[in-house]
Amino acid sequence: MTDQASNNFIWAGTLIHGLAACGVTHAVISPGSRSTPLALACLQHPGMKTWVQVDERSAAFFALGLAKACRQPVILICTSGSAPANWYPAVIEADMGAIPLILLSADRPAELRNCGANQSIDQNQLFGKHVRAFHELPPADSRPEMLPYLRSLAAQLTNQCRWPMPGPVHINVPLREPLVPGGPLPQIADMPPAVASHPAQSLNAEDSAALARELAGGKGLIVCGWGDHGEGFPEAVTTLAHKLACPLLADPLSGLRFGSHERSAILCRYDAFLRRASVQENLRPDWVLRFGAMPVSKSLQQFLAAHSGIPHLVSDAQGRWPDPLHQATRLLRADPVLLCRQLAAEIESATGSSWPEAFQDEEQRAAGLARQNAPLEAEVVQAVLDLLPDGSALFSGNSMAIRDLDAYSGSGSKSLHIIGNRGASGIDGNVSTALGLAAGSLRPMVALLGDLAFYHDMNGLLAARGLDAVFVVLNNGGGGIFEYLPQSQLEDFERAWLTPLGLDFAHAAKMYGLGYQKISRATDFPAALSSALSGGAHLIEVTVEREISVARHRNYWMAVMES
Amino acid sequence: MTDQASNNFIWAGTLIHGLAACGVTHAVISPGSRSTPLALACLQHPGMKTWVQVDERSAAFFALGLAKACRQPVILICTSGSAPANWYPAVIEADMGAIPLILLSADRPAELRNCGANQSIDQNQLFGKHVRAFHELPPADSRPEMLPYLRSLAAQLTNQCRWPMPGPVHINVPLREPLVPGGPLPQIADMPPAVASHPAQSLNAEDSAALARELAGGKGLIVCGWGDHGEGFPEAVTTLAHKLACPLLADPLSGLRFGSHERSAILCRYDAFLRRASVQENLRPDWVLRFGAMPVSKSLQQFLAAHSGIPHLVSDAQGRWPDPLHQATRLLRADPVLLCRQLAAEIESATGSSWPEAFQDEEQRAAGLARQNAPLEAEVVQAVLDLLPDGSALFSGNSMAIRDLDAYSGSGSKSLHIIGNRGASGIDGNVSTALGLAAGSLRPMVALLGDLAFYHDMNGLLAARGLDAVFVVLNNGGGGIFEYLPQSQLEDFERAWLTPLGLDFAHAAKMYGLGYQKISRATDFPAALSSALSGGAHLIEVTVEREISVARHRNYWMAVMES
Repeated sequence: MTDQASNNFIWAGTLIHGLAACGVTHAVISPGSRSTPLALACLQHPGMKTWVQVDERSAAFFALGLAKACRQPVILICTSGSAPANWYPAVIEADMGAIPLILLSADRPAELRNCGANQSIDQNQLFGKHVRAFHELPPADSRPEMLPYLRSLAAQLTNQCRWPMPGPVHINVPLREPLVPGGPLPQIADMPPAVASHPAQSLNAEDSAALARELAGGKGLIVCGWGDHGEGFPEAVTTLAHKLACPLLADPLSGLRFGSHERSAILCRYDAFLRRASVQENLRPDWVLRFGAMPVSKSLQQFLAAHSGIPHLVSDAQGRWPDPLHQATRLLRADPVLLCRQLAAEIESATGSSWPEAFQDEEQRAAGLARQNAPLEAEVVQAVLDLLPDGSALFSGNSMAIRDLDAYSGSGSKSLHIIGNRGASGIDGNVSTALGLAAGSLRPMVALLGDLAFYHDMNGLLAARGLDAVFVVLNNGGGGIFEYLPQSQLEDFERAWLTPLGLDFAHAAKMYGLGYQKISRATDFPAALSSALSGGAHLIEVTVEREISVARHRNYWMAVMES
Repeated sequence: MTDQASNNFIWAGTLIHGLAACGVTHAVISPGSRSTPLALACLQHPGMKTWVQVDERSAAFFALGLAKACRQPVILICTSGSAPANWYPAVIEADMGAIPLILLSADRPAELRNCGANQSIDQNQLFGKHVRAFHELPPADSRPEMLPYLRSLAAQLTNQCRWPMPGPVHINVPLREPLVPGGPLPQIADMPPAVASHPAQSLNAEDSAALARELAGGKGLIVCGWGDHGEGFPEAVTTLAHKLACPLLADPLSGLRFGSHERSAILCRYDAFLRRASVQENLRPDWVLRFGAMPVSKSLQQFLAAHSGIPHLVSDAQGRWPDPLHQATRLLRADPVLLCRQLAAEIESATGSSWPEAFQDEEQRAAGLARQNAPLEAEVVQAVLDLLPDGSALFSGNSMAIRDLDAYSGSGSKSLHIIGNRGASGIDGNVSTALGLAAGSLRPMVALLGDLAFYHDMNGLLAARGLDAVFVVLNNGGGGIFEYLPQSQLEDFERAWLTPLGLDFAHAAKMYGLGYQKISRATDFPAALSSALSGGAHLIEVTVEREISVARHRNYWMAVMES
């Protein structure tokens, strides 16, 4: 017979040991009393690296970044009440972005619910449809038969957050007082948990052959957006593109623009050249094959929308339906790498087609024009890509950051992890996600953010201590992207849409112990970045003159359209 | 036939005009594109005061504070995606704290859902069981019969968020592009919406008479926690206490400690004197009558728990079950003011009882001991109460702030609005809630917060510009309340429970344009507060030596217990 505090610890410990045995190595803990057994179990486990963060919203995005960097589920722990509700934005990004998180919320037991007890809310199904699974534990007791259940639950959780669709799982853990064992902590028995194998998914032989016949010889386009396409995808998809003699339009988050793979089929300037009337008229594809999410480029989307009625094949192995244009003619439920290899094996290499060359010509022309009269942001993007060492991470914020990266990155042989939060594409949690990448050993890490995104998650900077992380904030005085929208003509535009913050981020840098440099000329940026990349956490604020920037972006498009 | 952008505006405008006609006068808007028609409708309405905030989490707590100050529903507007998920912590506090909020989330229409469209998540029932109602609008069209529906919906919404249990309501608003009308904005027809009357609830005559007989002559205790007890409650409940010759134990958030009502029955020092063995043995009540939530005092809860088996009457007009000790013998479903008046009318005044005097003696003794060897926080509380002018608001954070207020406030004739977020009792959103009070014209406003609560919602300070608001941060180097719990003995206590921030808040004050003073001696505080109260937004950081503070709190309890 053990006491309640020991039972709590044994249960929490058995769950945490089980998760660790399934390969989980990081836990992000927010302080609280009720969650003590869970936190204690993580802190005591020799294989668990623990991170402590006070703001649960930032904690959850930090865990998201860690999970992206380590490609494994990350544990989140917090106390009862509104605390886990602060996880919600990151839970939604993890849901939409298919990132595994294991949400362990402490709770009051049944006898303290719905009766006005302090910090007690209804945590059952707190995240609704935005988690892969919800489990409610019973309160801990001393029955030994519960331990195999907890071990098995740990295995089930890690499976549910990884397959068939990665994402968050939520376990609500009611805990009775007392929460701290009086004597030494009980031993937790380590037992191997069940292992769930994930299948390889390939097209069946008939479909594969028919598809190869459909594509071969035609003028096709391969389009790649963000997504976890699997190891070996850059080689597999570029090999396929060559065999099909087709251009490969690669979003900055596709993982294809940078790396040691053969990149001659890869196009990065399509957002500009697809605006050209001659391209729209003359370069009409016979088919489109897409991998991952729809790319960020609006002109690519408009180009695709203009070509309906052709075979439009969408690869998604996990059951999503990534087809916002409602053009898909077939959904291919196979692992992208296997799919590329299957098709490549069926297809004879095409020769002598002028189709890919026409696109390459457009790419070269646009690249040349991009260098003339470039906005400050383009030069910042270029310097970041030039100076980042091999193996670094580049986190891109949404709004203008990802669009500037899209327009101006080009491609290269360096191995870079370009990562964004494009599941829900929010401006929230960007600082913490980026720091999670750095904590997950994608280092050095540079985050390219707008001023609103930086402000929205400024609390996340508390986690920057001891990490190598450089925040490059493109401060264009508010939501600069709105300048490109019809809202910019409204009477209250500045106050209600642009929302300039009027904050001097130098104070934030000082408060959180970040190195700080402020730059307003492109020529000053490389030195600032070089110095920041020498180690530690830094903020480089780049002052962007919004009107000039808008004009230069538009000039580039005009120049491409008229060239 | 009107165009889509005009239809969007007409629909949004009809809804907003309807809400305004139902008495809503404040809208808190976060910037976004999809939400443009809703924002525009609020900005254009002459009776709607609009507030713009970038961080939706802070925006929602600011709206919560506004709703508390104005005692009316407040509109929240944001764009689609993870944006509304940032509202969740405040939605939960509004749910548990019974504060009306009208959540208008913009959304993509059905054809852009579940197909990988950008910033499109499943917003249906986003807040689960934590809202009073969820409505999904159809996309706007030109059918004139929809306008009476929208007007009626506005009336229904304001009713649902006010009665029978105040709280948040969520309306998800899908909007099709284009979102900005090209020409002048269409006129919105103003029509009076339906009015929903809310009933007066009183005990039926038999129950009232029986209850009066049960209470009269016995040694009773009235206990009041936080809650919206209705106008006239202080007079009604103190009159009843006098008729019953019974002490009235009043939580700092009960609204009873300060005001012009007759306060001789009111006790504020029970958290200390109920720890005395002689009190526990000799002052045994025959019955307990409670209003509102269970007070924050742990020793009061333990005292009540020790007296089971006596009539324990709980007043709650709205259907909650505020009985965490599971002792209630009867739930009284009547408006607190009517209930007090009914009972007082039935009861002859008691005379010559020594029962209330015994409690008053304890109160006086504890008050005397509280002044000796007081912790710094006690002197801060005293100075705040002394210096705040009549009609001011005092916002109290959770954790130690509310406990110090409970222990050391005493009572007085000044009219003060002492307000906290005790629905879920989180450390989140405190800065914004406090600023919402100030924006809702409870001015001047002083917020008494711990360092973790201040940090958690530092983003909220962006709204401080132009408001008279003083933040008094009791900086005890982390979660000082944990020092009183067994967690303080754990090996990783400092890192995982106490979590000292190590931040210099002077930088935050500079960044957000707040006046800043740092105080470490009680004698310096009154002058600092006086100067801050002269106008504008200020931060007074009070350095609390945690060990000394803990020792002095404990000394006070020991002195009371041994006196």
